[in-house]
Amino acid sequence: MITGTTRLFAILADPVGHVQAPQMLNAWFEAHDVDGVFVPLHVHLDDLDAVVQGLRALHNLDGLVITMPHKTAMAALCDDIGPAARAIGSVNTVRRTPDGRLVGDMFDGHGFVAGLKSQGIDPRGQRILLLGAGGAATAIALALAESGAGALTVANRTRSKADALKACVQAAHPEVRIEVGQPDPRGHDMVVNATSQGMKPGDTLPLDTTLLEPAMTAIEIITKPEITPWLEQARNRGCRIHIGRHMLQAQIDQMARFMLGEAAGA
Amino acid sequence: MITGTTRLFAILADPVGHVQAPQMLNAWFEAHDVDGVFVPLHVHLDDLDAVVQGLRALHNLDGLVITMPHKTAMAALCDDIGPAARAIGSVNTVRRTPDGRLVGDMFDGHGFVAGLKSQGIDPRGQRILLLGAGGAATAIALALAESGAGALTVANRTRSKADALKACVQAAHPEVRIEVGQPDPRGHDMVVNATSQGMKPGDTLPLDTTLLEPAMTAIEIITKPEITPWLEQARNRGCRIHIGRHMLQAQIDQMARFMLGEAAGA
Repeated sequence: MITGTTRLFAILADPVGHVQAPQMLNAWFEAHDVDGVFVPLHVHLDDLDAVVQGLRALHNLDGLVITMPHKTAMAALCDDIGPAARAIGSVNTVRRTPDGRLVGDMFDGHGFVAGLKSQGIDPRGQRILLLGAGGAATAIALALAESGAGALTVANRTRSKADALKACVQAAHPEVRIEVGQPDPRGHDMVVNATSQGMKPGDTLPLDTTLLEPAMTAIEIITKPEITPWLEQARNRGCRIHIGRHMLQAQIDQMARFMLGEAAGA
Repeated sequence: MITGTTRLFAILADPVGHVQAPQMLNAWFEAHDVDGVFVPLHVHLDDLDAVVQGLRALHNLDGLVITMPHKTAMAALCDDIGPAARAIGSVNTVRRTPDGRLVGDMFDGHGFVAGLKSQGIDPRGQRILLLGAGGAATAIALALAESGAGALTVANRTRSKADALKACVQAAHPEVRIEVGQPDPRGHDMVVNATSQGMKPGDTLPLDTTLLEPAMTAIEIITKPEITPWLEQARNRGCRIHIGRHMLQAQIDQMARFMLGEAAGA
């Protein structure tokens, strides 16, 4: 029941029709007895400055979730951003403090690791093949490095983006072994798909699944479909699989607590 | 269930904790199968310009309800306002068109008359004593004049405000008989309390209730308490009474249809 005392939370997106955050965060608020409502805001990138200026002045607004195409532009509009957001250059969550300051952070990476741990999977000491080198892959690589991953191999169709990801991780975590390589799982304990390959029917596989071995863990961040084609094949080859929903659920929890001021940030 | 396709509606208020619009309009949306959510926005008057600038750029925002202290300032920020809003100089409802234009109107008066008619009461030809001369009283006087009221007497503690109300009604409806007078119900068919007297325990009565006669209809716009002290006494004297909830319900319906673009305005 929304009343005059209900606190406000919103997602900024364009397009907005497909976003899942309203359903997930309203369910979180209900489960945690928070008098809050989470709504979608359809904002064009050109209008982001004006919208954020207005949102700063809403005294019952506590937080924002940021998605395409606003993650990078929003980082520049925050008064303060956390270390993960600074390293990646974008934010996906913003807390509005009572005096109207906006504090941003990025939970893709920490949500990913928390999702692994929620299923009893610890990346510490593991040799990990990371497929993809976009924003989500970079956040995940940083969080894996922070969590003590033994070695990272980054494979991406555009080599220069993989090199940039490697440089970003090395700057933040010089102790971590990270190489740019091929999408070849041999010699790894875990394979993480951080590309969008597998979302659409007919997508090519992100790697040669015949090279997967039963001791490997196959990890996905795509949530729809729940079982992507390569994950299905990995399961058939005897691998442990880890679906994208675990990352999403862990991240929703982290985002909600950050917006409510219960956590210092990622 | 709020999803990415849900349309957004909001009330602008300061303070905001007491507002009833979220409960009433969300119930209206549910009853009319509208995929919409109505939320409170706590906005200081100094920030109204910046907030409205931002709201214009929300492509899934369809409408706003405006309450204290923003009704007059908001009228100046609209791109177009209806005749009732123009006459009174304030708006309580705004529709955002798909191209970001803001069209405002004022539904206090038409909501009042629609509330009367919903209970089978027609002001046409009636001699009406109107207590009060604020914004709500002015809107009600204009709507009663438009509905063919036979004669209006306006009684207000501050005489100059009653004179201003009379001038406003005469400008819009030169055919209507309207006088400034005393809070004396004798010679009238209806008495309308458009003051706030009766909201708080211990308020003085807005008129001498011993002068009420059974043929008179006693009409209230206050909604809490449902039966104000003078209304209770009017009922005891055999008058028909009409409670404030009827105006509020009629107005919620008019506001919702206006925000959804189903009505041209008040």
